[in-house]
Amino acid sequence: MLDAMLDLLVRTKPAVVSFHFGLPNAARIAALKGAGCVLLASATNLDEAKAIEAAGVDGVIAQGYEAGGHRGVFDPSLPDSALGTLALTRLLVAQTSLPVISAGGIMDGQGIAAALSLGAVAAQLGTAFVACPESSADDGYRAALMGEGAHQTVMTEALSGRPARCLSNRFTHWADAAAPIAPPDYPIAYDAGKALNGAAKATGEFGFGAQWAGQGAPLARAVPAASLVEALIKELADANRRAL
Amino acid sequence: MLDAMLDLLVRTKPAVVSFHFGLPNAARIAALKGAGCVLLASATNLDEAKAIEAAGVDGVIAQGYEAGGHRGVFDPSLPDSALGTLALTRLLVAQTSLPVISAGGIMDGQGIAAALSLGAVAAQLGTAFVACPESSADDGYRAALMGEGAHQTVMTEALSGRPARCLSNRFTHWADAAAPIAPPDYPIAYDAGKALNGAAKATGEFGFGAQWAGQGAPLARAVPAASLVEALIKELADANRRAL
Repeated sequence: MLDAMLDLLVRTKPAVVSFHFGLPNAARIAALKGAGCVLLASATNLDEAKAIEAAGVDGVIAQGYEAGGHRGVFDPSLPDSALGTLALTRLLVAQTSLPVISAGGIMDGQGIAAALSLGAVAAQLGTAFVACPESSADDGYRAALMGEGAHQTVMTEALSGRPARCLSNRFTHWADAAAPIAPPDYPIAYDAGKALNGAAKATGEFGFGAQWAGQGAPLARAVPAASLVEALIKELADANRRAL
Repeated sequence: MLDAMLDLLVRTKPAVVSFHFGLPNAARIAALKGAGCVLLASATNLDEAKAIEAAGVDGVIAQGYEAGGHRGVFDPSLPDSALGTLALTRLLVAQTSLPVISAGGIMDGQGIAAALSLGAVAAQLGTAFVACPESSADDGYRAALMGEGAHQTVMTEALSGRPARCLSNRFTHWADAAAPIAPPDYPIAYDAGKALNGAAKATGEFGFGAQWAGQGAPLARAVPAASLVEALIKELADANRRAL
């Protein structure tokens, strides 16, 4: 976190500040808490969650291996235990004192109900909203997400220099073929990848985009965000009724 | 499935026959159905589940990536999409007509409640019962499962020749160091591994066992199986009550 970012946050006082890829130092956490922000941070295992708890952060996001986009691991050089959303959520609920927000593969109210059954206080959905017209996903990304390709997501470092889950596309195929050549560090590879995608798109080739998606991608719905939220609420209520 | 196995099953007519690593041919499925057996089969992705549905099997086990023991992939030479239990269960419920049994990382009634919220008709628990005194796990396996090592499970082909999830131990460390040397095919590697473990145990070294465990391992309970089942029932009821 840069000083300029911290200054902006302390000045504008957003209701929630959520950290990914680890934690800022104690002084910065204190500054944000002093500004009245509720602080959250992503954990992919119990050790990270314990560090989040010790730092005085208010809640933890249990980011399961299913999740799309960047994996919030604190140190990508350590072995990744690849904990699924179900196992990780239950572990953090059972073995930390923090409120847990469950993330990864949750696409509908049934998924939210499952997260709450595990003891999470909330669920965080990303991929579920990518196909909504309000998102900034380009046409190639939308087409890939709504097509057969949604069944193939991959965890790759190729697009950005850090592990992230995305739809399998020409970029990830190339990276598989090029392995084990390691990409440059984050965000050098990410900047280069964005430039590559820009050049490719200019020729009508959409296969080099950072098409982030979680394992629930085949359940994505191309409906306005408000309709999706209404559906989520109804599905959650139905799932809870069925539990009786 | 060998002819002798099929004959035994048709003769003894168990209530349920469950397949792993793919499906037997149509004649064998017909013979087992003719004997009145309910047939189940494990799927790790939608394609496998569709094949199970087409074969006339009665139900599908959604085996998430969290699950301990052998991964039921039909063809281990294909890329593994590593679908987590939550994402896979929801996908199979939504996109097949079969009753779905959810498996992988489920250790308690809260986990069972989550599976049912996703639309599964039942949950299958394995690792949850390994520490029960009734299981055949040896002392080294029990000690590893109930210790800090339970936080590190790995998916490896080294122990048997097919991908399987187990506790990280001396055998899996050796396999990591030896990679990318591929082990012999299943079950050749498995037979050799069992012999290795037997020799190691004779000297008091327990780190070469096939210590199968799912990602929920840190939540294992060393209590009699009947007590565990009672706890599961109570936890499930509590989780359902909280959903209101």
